[in-house]
Parts: sequence; structure tokens; C-alpha cells
Amino acid sequence: MQGSLFAARPMRTSWRLTSAESTLRIAKGRIVSPGTVSAMQGQDLSTVRVGVLGCGNVGASVVSIIQADADSIAAKTGIKLVVTKVAVRNLSADRAVALPDGVLTRDAHAVANGSDVDIVVETIGGIEPARQITLAALKSGKPVVTANKELVANCGAELFEAATAAGVDLHFEAAVGGGIPIMRALRKSLVGERINKILGIVNGTTNFILTKMTEEGAGYADVLAEAQALGFAEADPTADVEGHDAGAKAAIMATIAFGQSVVPGDVFQEGISQVSASDIEAARRLEHVIKLLAIVERTDDEVAVRVHPAMVPITHPLAAVRDSFNAVFVEGEAVGELMFYGRGAGGFPTASAMIGDLLSAISNLKRSTASPFGTLEAAKMRPIDQTSSAFYLKLEVQDRPGVLAAVSSVFGKHGVSIRSMEQHGAGDSASLVLIIHRALESDVQATLRELRELESVQSVGSVMRVIGD
Amino acid sequence: MQGSLFAARPMRTSWRLTSAESTLRIAKGRIVSPGTVSAMQGQDLSTVRVGVLGCGNVGASVVSIIQADADSIAAKTGIKLVVTKVAVRNLSADRAVALPDGVLTRDAHAVANGSDVDIVVETIGGIEPARQITLAALKSGKPVVTANKELVANCGAELFEAATAAGVDLHFEAAVGGGIPIMRALRKSLVGERINKILGIVNGTTNFILTKMTEEGAGYADVLAEAQALGFAEADPTADVEGHDAGAKAAIMATIAFGQSVVPGDVFQEGISQVSASDIEAARRLEHVIKLLAIVERTDDEVAVRVHPAMVPITHPLAAVRDSFNAVFVEGEAVGELMFYGRGAGGFPTASAMIGDLLSAISNLKRSTASPFGTLEAAKMRPIDQTSSAFYLKLEVQDRPGVLAAVSSVFGKHGVSIRSMEQHGAGDSASLVLIIHRALESDVQATLRELRELESVQSVGSVMRVIGD
Repeated sequence: MQGSLFAARPMRTSWRLTSAESTLRIAKGRIVSPGTVSAMQGQDLSTVRVGVLGCGNVGASVVSIIQADADSIAAKTGIKLVVTKVAVRNLSADRAVALPDGVLTRDAHAVANGSDVDIVVETIGGIEPARQITLAALKSGKPVVTANKELVANCGAELFEAATAAGVDLHFEAAVGGGIPIMRALRKSLVGERINKILGIVNGTTNFILTKMTEEGAGYADVLAEAQALGFAEADPTADVEGHDAGAKAAIMATIAFGQSVVPGDVFQEGISQVSASDIEAARRLEHVIKLLAIVERTDDEVAVRVHPAMVPITHPLAAVRDSFNAVFVEGEAVGELMFYGRGAGGFPTASAMIGDLLSAISNLKRSTASPFGTLEAAKMRPIDQTSSAFYLKLEVQDRPGVLAAVSSVFGKHGVSIRSMEQHGAGDSASLVLIIHRALESDVQATLRELRELESVQSVGSVMRVIGD
Repeated sequence: MQGSLFAARPMRTSWRLTSAESTLRIAKGRIVSPGTVSAMQGQDLSTVRVGVLGCGNVGASVVSIIQADADSIAAKTGIKLVVTKVAVRNLSADRAVALPDGVLTRDAHAVANGSDVDIVVETIGGIEPARQITLAALKSGKPVVTANKELVANCGAELFEAATAAGVDLHFEAAVGGGIPIMRALRKSLVGERINKILGIVNGTTNFILTKMTEEGAGYADVLAEAQALGFAEADPTADVEGHDAGAKAAIMATIAFGQSVVPGDVFQEGISQVSASDIEAARRLEHVIKLLAIVERTDDEVAVRVHPAMVPITHPLAAVRDSFNAVFVEGEAVGELMFYGRGAGGFPTASAMIGDLLSAISNLKRSTASPFGTLEAAKMRPIDQTSSAFYLKLEVQDRPGVLAAVSSVFGKHGVSIRSMEQHGAGDSASLVLIIHRALESDVQATLRELRELESVQSVGSVMRVIGD
């Protein structure tokens, strides 16, 4: 099939098959078994030229899947994918895939504007130059498929408008949850649903770390180091462990779920670097596990989006999502509870989502249509201090008469209701573990500020939000 | 908005909004808050007339959602849904929804062919007359959205061809997994994926029963009676408990996953009526739970589809799917493991899936396009005796010298490898519990036939397949 790599015109092939031929199929002079010719019957087989931006882990996986499966995909969909251009920064770097001569280039704009590219796959990452090149590709009438959460989260509104103006698709399934088809579920299946809440475990690095801390009782620093050694965390792990990666994904999920623009700057982000082995143990005793959650909620006409560690009841479906797996739990008014689970990162899972997007976009392109966005207005955000949560708190206190009364009365003063309180230890280093009923964040923070002023409270050791059953 | 119920022409509304107007939106003379007008900017607002076949649990839920949410759906999608016709058998029966005069009719063909219906929702169930009416609707250029697993599983090929010929959509998200968007995931997101295996818990009745047996140690008959009393099982529960409902859904999943036609007759079906409390207990001791699984596998060019009870390791994501919830676990070559979880039945979850399908189909209809099927060739089926599984077996034996040797040698003779063997009890009523390594079904069945002939084997008590980790 080498010659077709640079085919300028789509190939047209159609057969009519009689039942007598049903056990034998001739396709392009090659005998194939029943079933593989299905999509070719009466359908055009179109060659579509794919330009890929970037050839790292994800880009190379996309190319690899296309190389391995182009024929089976063509048999099923009538679409023959060929990679005609791959833009990279360094032509001589080792690649995980073999590419024919003339495909590799340093010219990203050749991909965006080139006449030998029908559709663009963007795997560069980051905001610039990905944004410029994506806009250029859209303007030149090429659909774009991206995995770039930073780009979509920060520049979504502008990109959606450009895609709408150009009448082509911008797809970004791979930007959230890797191979999990959550974006399509939110954009299509659930577009008529009144979504009330989304809880997501959307960062594999932090889920890997928290799972190991939970299952082995190890401390954060040790597990982070192990994660880095194993390639589950970056040398600079900040974006993952401080919740920024999850924050970008939360913004995208909120935008798509509600049809209103939410950007990372709207999202409260607290990471896992303060989660201790004793917090993990406290959760276990309470029959919870600690997860880094992206939480998206709508109340009336306001949207609240936040990322922070949270204690999740072990009976909740999210509690069983371990290791570097991701999951998105959706609560809708009619549909009830849904959960989508899978590998949230990795070359092939991410590339798989991009292939699905490619085929969707091509299907639309062939019919001169595109999935609509509309123009998204900015969401009306409800800041975190106006949201409510249950809490787990650990206070280091002096063990002496009157401490419990003093502490309780601060809570009472701010209208924060205590569900349970336990004292551990004695003398000068006792700790109080409290579970607080669902309360307004601002009331809880006011309570904590006042507690820190109490003479008998040495410090506020841990503050963690708790997800209700 | 009453007047719009019978609007024959789509309403067109578009505004250009300046930033000065961004805090105030005027829509149809009504002041709305930011965000709700998003989709209306620069887009046509189309009224689409929905004809519903059937007004039972699911049909009434569809009507109810449309009545409650038509405005918010219109704001988000530019599509205003109105129900213009609802066909029922009995005009005077109590309905869960209030319908305007002139909407209810006994004439299903008025829905399929009527000039006041743009798109048809089919909730009648069963094969006829649903098949005839669906074909009539498709032929008259109306997309059809159905929840009818029997119809799609048995008549899919014919219906897909009719939809393709008419150039309109046939959507059936609600036929498998209720509100879970598994069909769209398989048809779209994963269309380019090489799917190796699907494991589904797709029948809520049997999952409810097995969960109660597991969590309460109760026997099958008692729990079935309770399920019937609670409305989780029918008076005649055969279709659910004997695996026929799951079999139809398995056939649909296989057809869509592989692009080849699989019908219920191709699917081995064994239900849960022989699952005993002691089987459940045996599973627990082995750290497994018993689930009724729909298993879809592809090997080379053959497809194997079966439904039967199976022991699932408690560490498997499916093991945590309890009560009447459904889940579909997919293993793909690139994407790895995915799981989709949610409420597999119930009026509102099912209706939610139909609303998503409605909006998709309408979006295509407005652009004179449709999701393609191709013409599906019949899959080459691999019968169950050519599939492989691990097994749990329980034999009632006489406890005397030579029994273990005799039993083991029968396994050895058929090349079936024993992983573990335990004897319980003594004397005339001992039992042997065996776990068999993955073996060919035909070899295991041959082994069992020969074991039954052994003098020392009184009976084969339990035979259950075991899912590997």
C-alpha cells in the first residue's frame, strides 16, 4: 500500500456482493474473510491524509496505530488513514516509529497549512506554539484533534469560535482521562442531561502516589521518589502533585458539562503534597480512602469547580479506582450515577482516544459538517468559600480541662456542626480528630482561624474535605 | 410557550451581542442570566416534533424530560423538542404525564408516517409491531430512537439497512445498559480500536439477586421472590434470570464492537437459576464474587459470545458493581481497560439515553446526514465448546481410598490441568472442590461426562466458569 501514502485523490471502490459470494470476498485482488469487507460495500473508500504535530510518546503512538491498523479501520469505516506529515523539533532524534522519507519535517506550519494534509493531530502540548498552529490549521479548513489540556482549558473559547467559523471540528477527547471517552459522553450523550455534579480522579501521577501510600503505609516523599523513578511522575512534579493538571481538566469538564466557559483560573487547586501517612491512616479508620478529586458542581445558575484531596467512602465506586487509573463519576438529574473508568495517560490509551476523534472528525468533514459548539459565555463561578463540604480535622492540643469545651464552642459560634470528636494521646501532645457535618467552607475557615488563636490549640494539623456517601 | 407545540415552521432567532450587553441577555422578550443564551447566538433555534410510541415507564419518562427541560435543552443546543404525538394501546389508561389534547392517539402509523412528526421514539418493546412501525418510520425519512434490545438484536441488520437506505439515523443507546452511553462509545469513540474482549453486567434483575445472595447469604428462590415483590423482577422472570435479556444485549455489543452481525441465536445463554448459596459461599472463600456476565471475545477472525454466571475476582472492577447497577468492561488493544458503569434500567436513566440519541439524530437530520452503518456481514461465530475458561467444580464423592486418584486421572486424560483440589466432609458424603486452570470448554465437558460415570462420583454439584485476574 506504499503508493497510497502520497495519494492526492481519494480512492473510490465499491462492490455489490451476492449471497453466492458471501463465503468469499475479493477486495483489491486479495481474498479476505467474511466480515472485513463490510464497510466497503456500496461505500466510498476515502484516503485521508493526517498531519501530526509532535512525535513523542503520544504522537508516535498515534502514528503507530495508524500504521498497524489502517487496513482494518478502512474495512470497518471506509476511511483509509495515512500519515503524510509529522512535524518535530529535532529531525535526528530517535523515534519509536519508522517513517517514510519526506514525512518528517521541522515545519509545523507545513502541517497546519499544507495541501498534503487533510486533518491535524496536535500532540505538542503547552499553550504556544500549539495555539497558533491550531488556529492556523482550523482557519485553513483542517479539523484538529488534540490531547492538549492546557490549550483547551485556557484557550477553549477562542478555539471553539475559530472551529465554528471554519466549519470544522475541534476534538479533544484525549485531553481529559486519556483513553476514557468522557468528552464524547458529555458533549453528545449527556448534552440534554441536567448534570448536577462531576467527581473526577483525573491525574494518574497523584492517584499512583496516593494508592501506594494507602496500600503500603509509606510517606509522601518516599512514594513520590519511587513514582519518579518508575516514570509515573516528572522530574518537576509540580503540575501533577499541586493539582494544576487536574485543575485544567476540571475546567474542561465543567465547560463541556454546562455549556459555559470555565478556565483554570476559575478553579481552586490544592494538591497532595501535604497529605501525610497519618491522614491516610485516619481515613482508613473512618473507612474512607484519600483521593485527589476534581469536583464540578452546579447550583442554580452558579458553577463551582475545585481540585483538592478528599476522603472518599470505601463503598463509593471511586474508592476502588487505584494505581494510575482515572475515573469520572457523573451525577445527572435523569440518568442518576454514571462512572467512566480507564487508563488516563500513556501513549497508546491517549492515542486511542485521538484515533476515535480523527474518525469522527473525518466522518463530518466528508459531509461538510462539524459538531457545534455555539459561543460559550463565561460561567458564573461560585468561589470555594461559598461551597459546602463535610470535613476531617486534626488539631494538636494541650490535654487539659476545658480544651474540648473551648474547641467545641468555637465551632458552635460559627454554626459548624460536629459529627464526631476523638481525642488521642495525652499531656502536652494530644490530638483531636473531628469530623464536621457538611458546612459552608467560609464558616469552616473562620472556625479554623479562631481555633489557631486558642491557647490550648498548638496547631491545626490536618484539614481535609470528606465526600458524602 | 404553548403555541409552539404545533409549530410547523422552525423558529429562527439570532442576536449579535456586544460586550456591553454581556451581563444582560434578552431572549424572546425574557431576561435570562449569562450562559443560558449561549447556543442561541448566531444559531437557528429549530423546533423538532417528536412522536413517541408507547407511554409506559420509559415513554412517559421521555415525555416528562422533554416537558421539564425543553427550554434548557434549547438554550444549550438550539433544538427545541416538542412532543406532538404519543401512540398508546389504551387511550383511557392512567399516565404518569399530562398531555395536551390531540397528542394521544391509538394510531402508531400516524406517528411513523405523520406529517406532524419529525423523529420517532420507540418504547413499545418486543419484535412486532415495533419492527414494522420502525421500518415505516425510517422509510418515511424519520430517524428512530429505540430502547428495544429484542428488536435491535434480532432485526438489527434489516433495520440498519433501512436506515442507511433512508439516510436517517437509527439510535439504540438505551437498548444496552440503560443510561450508560456504551453504544456511542463502541460506535464512535472506539470504532478504530481493536477490541479484544467485553465483559458486561447488563441485567439489573440478576445483579440485584446475586448481590443480595452474596451480601445476605440468602438462597436463590427467596431472593427472587423478594426481587419480584420490590419490582426488580417480573412475575415471569425467565427472560432476565435465564440470561435471555443479557444475551440480546451481548449480541448487540458484539455486533457494534466488531462491525459484524451477531444475533441472539448465536449467543450461548445460561442463567442464574442454578446458582446456590453454597456456590456464593465457595466464591467468597476463593475471594471471588458471582456475577452473570455477558462475554464477547474476538480471536483471529472468529467471534465468541456467551452469557453465564461466572466467578469474578474481588479485585476486578466488575466485582464492585452491585445491586441493580450495570457495567460494561472493555479491553482494547490500544486503549487497554475501560469500564462504563451506571443504572442499567429504570424510566429516567433509560429516557436520558434516548434524549441524548434524539439530539444526536436531530443534529444529523438538520444537516441531512446520518451515522453510517455499512452493511454488516454475519460474524463467524466460535461456539462455546471452542472457547477457554478457568473453572470451579464441586463434585459429590464417596470418601474412600483411590477417589482422588481416579478423579485426577480423568482430568489428566483430557488434558485439563487442576490448579487446586480440596476435599470437604467425609464418609459417604464428601465433596471435592476443584479449580481448573484455563481449559478448552469441550475438554472440560468431556471430563465432566466421564466423571459422572465414575462409581465414586455421586454427582457433579456445581460447574462455574472463573474469570482470570
